[in-house]
Amino acid sequence: MSLPSSVRIVEVGPRDGLQNEKQSINVADKVRLIDDLSAAGLSYIEVGSFVSPKWVPQMAGSAELFAQIQQLPGVTYAALAPNLKGFDGALAAGVREVAVFAAASEAFSQKNINCSIGESLERFVPLMEAAKQHGIRVRGYVSCVLGCPYEGTIAPAQVADVARELYNMGCYEISLGDTIGAGTAGETRRLIEVVGSKVPRNKLAGHFHDTYGQALANIYASLLEGIEVFDSSVAGLGGCPYAKGATGNVATEDVLYLLNGLGIETAIDLDKLIAAGQRICTVLGRESGSHVARALSRLQTKELTAQKTR
Amino acid sequence: MSLPSSVRIVEVGPRDGLQNEKQSINVADKVRLIDDLSAAGLSYIEVGSFVSPKWVPQMAGSAELFAQIQQLPGVTYAALAPNLKGFDGALAAGVREVAVFAAASEAFSQKNINCSIGESLERFVPLMEAAKQHGIRVRGYVSCVLGCPYEGTIAPAQVADVARELYNMGCYEISLGDTIGAGTAGETRRLIEVVGSKVPRNKLAGHFHDTYGQALANIYASLLEGIEVFDSSVAGLGGCPYAKGATGNVATEDVLYLLNGLGIETAIDLDKLIAAGQRICTVLGRESGSHVARALSRLQTKELTAQKTR
Repeated sequence: MSLPSSVRIVEVGPRDGLQNEKQSINVADKVRLIDDLSAAGLSYIEVGSFVSPKWVPQMAGSAELFAQIQQLPGVTYAALAPNLKGFDGALAAGVREVAVFAAASEAFSQKNINCSIGESLERFVPLMEAAKQHGIRVRGYVSCVLGCPYEGTIAPAQVADVARELYNMGCYEISLGDTIGAGTAGETRRLIEVVGSKVPRNKLAGHFHDTYGQALANIYASLLEGIEVFDSSVAGLGGCPYAKGATGNVATEDVLYLLNGLGIETAIDLDKLIAAGQRICTVLGRESGSHVARALSRLQTKELTAQKTR
Repeated sequence: MSLPSSVRIVEVGPRDGLQNEKQSINVADKVRLIDDLSAAGLSYIEVGSFVSPKWVPQMAGSAELFAQIQQLPGVTYAALAPNLKGFDGALAAGVREVAVFAAASEAFSQKNINCSIGESLERFVPLMEAAKQHGIRVRGYVSCVLGCPYEGTIAPAQVADVARELYNMGCYEISLGDTIGAGTAGETRRLIEVVGSKVPRNKLAGHFHDTYGQALANIYASLLEGIEVFDSSVAGLGGCPYAKGATGNVATEDVLYLLNGLGIETAIDLDKLIAAGQRICTVLGRESGSHVARALSRLQTKELTAQKTR
């Protein structure tokens, strides 16, 4: 058994998370969340998205966000940019790193962004060129890597092809997303083996959803395959375990608890992270989607009760 | 990577699960649950407990249960028996397999059963002798194997000593219980290494709680260490994710989904298992604690909605 000595967590709560919450929140609360996260030691935060507010109203105001957050040295503040127009918006807002996304499933690509996988990749060419000109790093997402809501099973070789395309285009890292959260540990290992034969493993990241409760087992399986970067969402934002239609981003707190237990370094403060999650949950009026946050809050409640009844 | 080709699941929902639910249910509903579980292919079901109803009122009527359930051939119907009196009660009810329990933590033993670990083990001597006389198999539980709510960290060597004692006494299998659900994958592997040096690994079982969301990662870690038996609770009975004070038995559905994905044989029908869980949840008036059951029920709801709106 060989595990990485350190792991980088890509915090996607403010973007991927809030985008999928029913309730939209104001810029000040988002700024507070992002500043809380950087103060907790997160070194990579996906802040927002430069897409049309017509498509994703929750992501309006991303330029304001970048202007108002406290940008700490050593922390990467990234934004999603689906095309050159989005990239230009991000650039104007001072963004230094962007992310692009493609699907590993043709059906999902058609339904989600109304074009084929090949067409979606072609659209990135001018964006990648512009990014290169301006010295902006680009991260690539591949969705539906362990299953598609429309097609079902997705062949690992197909994921590998899309990942390889993004890598060849200039993405410095490829995040493999189990969008429907249906993958299990064995499938995760096979996926990494296959994709890892086309893209160096140290350029791959894991992005797991906990919809079927498998996310931490899949992360552990990925660690055993040498993956050192994982996307997660504070408080499980974007997937409320108490609501129908939950999408199920794995909670950053739960990932960190696993990594701490394995003795893997992250430089993140669990207490501060939990506090950041509790604050945004209060704003949203929902309970945390993190098992760890809920378990520890119960412990604290018991201690408080014990103190009060003494 | 070497995984077992088949796994046996010990279904503890009717006993460990219902015992920890606030609401008690009637014998008929328990009978239905147990019969649903055996019909779903579970080959081992912990039916009830022969303890004083003064201590655990939810377990009253275990003798009635054994009389009323449909006992399928090839299925083990077991009962917890804390002492000789309980054993005699179980024997009179026709029980052919019992379980005994000890803690790996002195503080937990004192607070839970008001005696030291050593004293609790001594109490089992007459029970074990009686069991041998009557040809009754005895399974042993060790609790707090990855942490104690009072002592905190528990040394794996201490767990190994208690497990070894139970094994030497005649328990054919020792179930290692992470009572507070705080263990992580690396600790799980070390625990199995240490305990496995005192008790053969094929005599060990894993009993994980999902309180900190780590149960499936711990089960995957255990599988990698050669463990082939796991305890779990249908619908996560005994740990309601929507209530404060949840204890968090891992849901059988989620374990089965993991095992299915790994291609590990169990002979359990996931659909029937989910239906059994949904039925008992309806009786209890709670949502299922199984991620898989909730995810699939959302899919079905969507399909139904789609059908209705056509």
